[in-house]
Amino acid sequence: MTPHINRDRLLGRLETFNRIGALPGGGNCRLALSDEDHAGRDLLVQWMRELGLKVTIDAIGNIVGVRAGREDTAPVMFGSHVDTVGTGGRYDGLYGVLAGLEACEAANDAGAATRRPLALVAFTNEEGARFQPYAMGSLVYAGTLALDEAYAIRGIDGATVGEELRRIGYAGEATPGFLTPHAYLELHIEQGPVLEDEGLVIGAVEGITGLAWTEVTITGRASHAGTTPMNLRRDAACAASEVALFVRRLAQEMGGHQKGTVGRLALYPNLINVVAERATLTVDLRNTQEAPLRAAEQELARFLDGLAAREQVAVSTRSLGRFTPVAFPDEMVSLVEATARDLALPCRRMPSGAGHDAQMMARLCPAGMIFVPSVGGLSHNVREETKPEHLEAGAAVLLNAVLRLAG
Amino acid sequence: MTPHINRDRLLGRLETFNRIGALPGGGNCRLALSDEDHAGRDLLVQWMRELGLKVTIDAIGNIVGVRAGREDTAPVMFGSHVDTVGTGGRYDGLYGVLAGLEACEAANDAGAATRRPLALVAFTNEEGARFQPYAMGSLVYAGTLALDEAYAIRGIDGATVGEELRRIGYAGEATPGFLTPHAYLELHIEQGPVLEDEGLVIGAVEGITGLAWTEVTITGRASHAGTTPMNLRRDAACAASEVALFVRRLAQEMGGHQKGTVGRLALYPNLINVVAERATLTVDLRNTQEAPLRAAEQELARFLDGLAAREQVAVSTRSLGRFTPVAFPDEMVSLVEATARDLALPCRRMPSGAGHDAQMMARLCPAGMIFVPSVGGLSHNVREETKPEHLEAGAAVLLNAVLRLAG
Repeated sequence: MTPHINRDRLLGRLETFNRIGALPGGGNCRLALSDEDHAGRDLLVQWMRELGLKVTIDAIGNIVGVRAGREDTAPVMFGSHVDTVGTGGRYDGLYGVLAGLEACEAANDAGAATRRPLALVAFTNEEGARFQPYAMGSLVYAGTLALDEAYAIRGIDGATVGEELRRIGYAGEATPGFLTPHAYLELHIEQGPVLEDEGLVIGAVEGITGLAWTEVTITGRASHAGTTPMNLRRDAACAASEVALFVRRLAQEMGGHQKGTVGRLALYPNLINVVAERATLTVDLRNTQEAPLRAAEQELARFLDGLAAREQVAVSTRSLGRFTPVAFPDEMVSLVEATARDLALPCRRMPSGAGHDAQMMARLCPAGMIFVPSVGGLSHNVREETKPEHLEAGAAVLLNAVLRLAG
Repeated sequence: MTPHINRDRLLGRLETFNRIGALPGGGNCRLALSDEDHAGRDLLVQWMRELGLKVTIDAIGNIVGVRAGREDTAPVMFGSHVDTVGTGGRYDGLYGVLAGLEACEAANDAGAATRRPLALVAFTNEEGARFQPYAMGSLVYAGTLALDEAYAIRGIDGATVGEELRRIGYAGEATPGFLTPHAYLELHIEQGPVLEDEGLVIGAVEGITGLAWTEVTITGRASHAGTTPMNLRRDAACAASEVALFVRRLAQEMGGHQKGTVGRLALYPNLINVVAERATLTVDLRNTQEAPLRAAEQELARFLDGLAAREQVAVSTRSLGRFTPVAFPDEMVSLVEATARDLALPCRRMPSGAGHDAQMMARLCPAGMIFVPSVGGLSHNVREETKPEHLEAGAAVLLNAVLRLAG
């Protein structure tokens, strides 16, 4: 009997899980290591155990459920994360984990034994919405971020990662990286409009965009909005506006896969009748290629220098994250393509504009990703949606690709 | 014996009063009807009574201290306010009140009897930083804002004016407007750089700039900063930036006394990796003439219409305040000029770019204002400063002009 995905069971689990941290108007808030994240973790562990998986929590809170193989060898790992941004959708992260769970149950139902063990994982704090950097769990798992450094990171509410892990009881005993996978595969919603626009069902992800996050602080001079002549102002709000528009223009002019976003901006003192003294904003630059990403960073730095002189403001910057682009091995991309083809699912190769745990796992083992369409391309938005048939299709590709890898 | 200002006494009172609500790094925070405002009011009332003034609190919390005249006729009223913005300076408002107090004491010291009573006033909530509109006390006093309407106004912290007045014990029994003044004179720091730039000491204020305050809400679409193509974005942060730069450009191009400021701006969800769904910002437009001010408002409205179409965002606006420009009667401007000349203080006529209580009192009686220089033109800034000799000079002009008016 060939294992196959049970769509209703998958949708039912998504439904049940998403009652945790549900927002009144739709969407979800399960910020990493919050009470909602805690409740979600407990439910996942319970479900893993019900399927007979052997659950291990590592010291950064990653949850790994192992289904034994015929041989005690390197497992095929797959999964994603269950935390969300503050105004998150129903599928970002969670879908990859629960589709992985469904794959395990489908294998159980079919009595399918694999040569390699299957290891379903939910990584800690992929979103980086509460604690930065993002993909913290996989970064620590891959050995790129030291555990004590991660523990000391303070979130937007003042609590540290270490305190919160202990508070919710997910500072486990296993050493992050305790399993070195044979391969890692992550199923995720696209979070962009490409598959939908082209009427496709599966994206075979070729790699992950590189990313440069910069916090920019602009200091001008507070002065009275009614009495200060226009030509004597040192207006941090206007200078910040110049940055936001420059970042957009830069990405538009560079074209290709270059993106640029100012998503966070705060003024001080932020009063109707006071010329702003200070502005703090973030710049998110991304590109699938390292060379143009570096060029974009240099353009930004040059622009900020000119801005400081032109607007008579002081400008300082601080890096909040920098990742070089990651290319997945061709064997993993081809595996996703071939699996989709066998299932008669229209598929294309594409880059991922978003960061994912797969990007960090690529340092440990061959990694790959499977995308399914996002309705309207929306994500990090409470109206995030993926059609049930696409949810089923992605899970089927995951199941079959994992079975091939596991032998 | 001619009354004259005691500089040390004036500076000493400013020093003592400014211990109330002092900020750690300098400057003051005495938001209207806060505990700090309460403490300041109590001190002022105590000082008024020590000088023999008859203190009356009206129903909106205005404090009036009357020094009897030889005749029981319309008084000469003078004063300002003692509340501050959140990051206010030491002189904005307070100086006019304490210089008025010093004028009363100087008259007492000299045994000077005036024909008309002298009425020193501290108006409630001139700043509008906590409760809008600004100049609330003088608006109610002049009969332009109804008392019950003012009571119902909710501040940035959720409390209402009525609740807070009762809480601090300053909802008095007198009816606002209980004294109709013969004239009203207000001494204030310039809050701009003109007098300092020209090496002058006294400004004879010809009128008060008109003002249009608008809150603009821009709604785009939240989407993922890494995956959403640049050309498919509906980015509220970029649209808000366009508004801030347009407002500056508009004021620069109109020239003259046109000002334009975006001082408050908030994004939602305000996250580094999410294209902003919503921006709320304020536009402060001012002009000394009504016609160009109205033209500026129309230009703004036209720009917002075009912006909505161009950026594919929804734009809505809400008026937060609108005052037409006020011209003070020439007799009041000339009185200030003549008084300064008699004291050998270099003086010029000038408009006020900021709103003041005098603007509202001009509806009740002939009103005028005296300006003294602000170091660096700074105000609504904790580094607000005026030189001691200028503080003394302004108080001397106030004293002498009030004595002339009082006969």
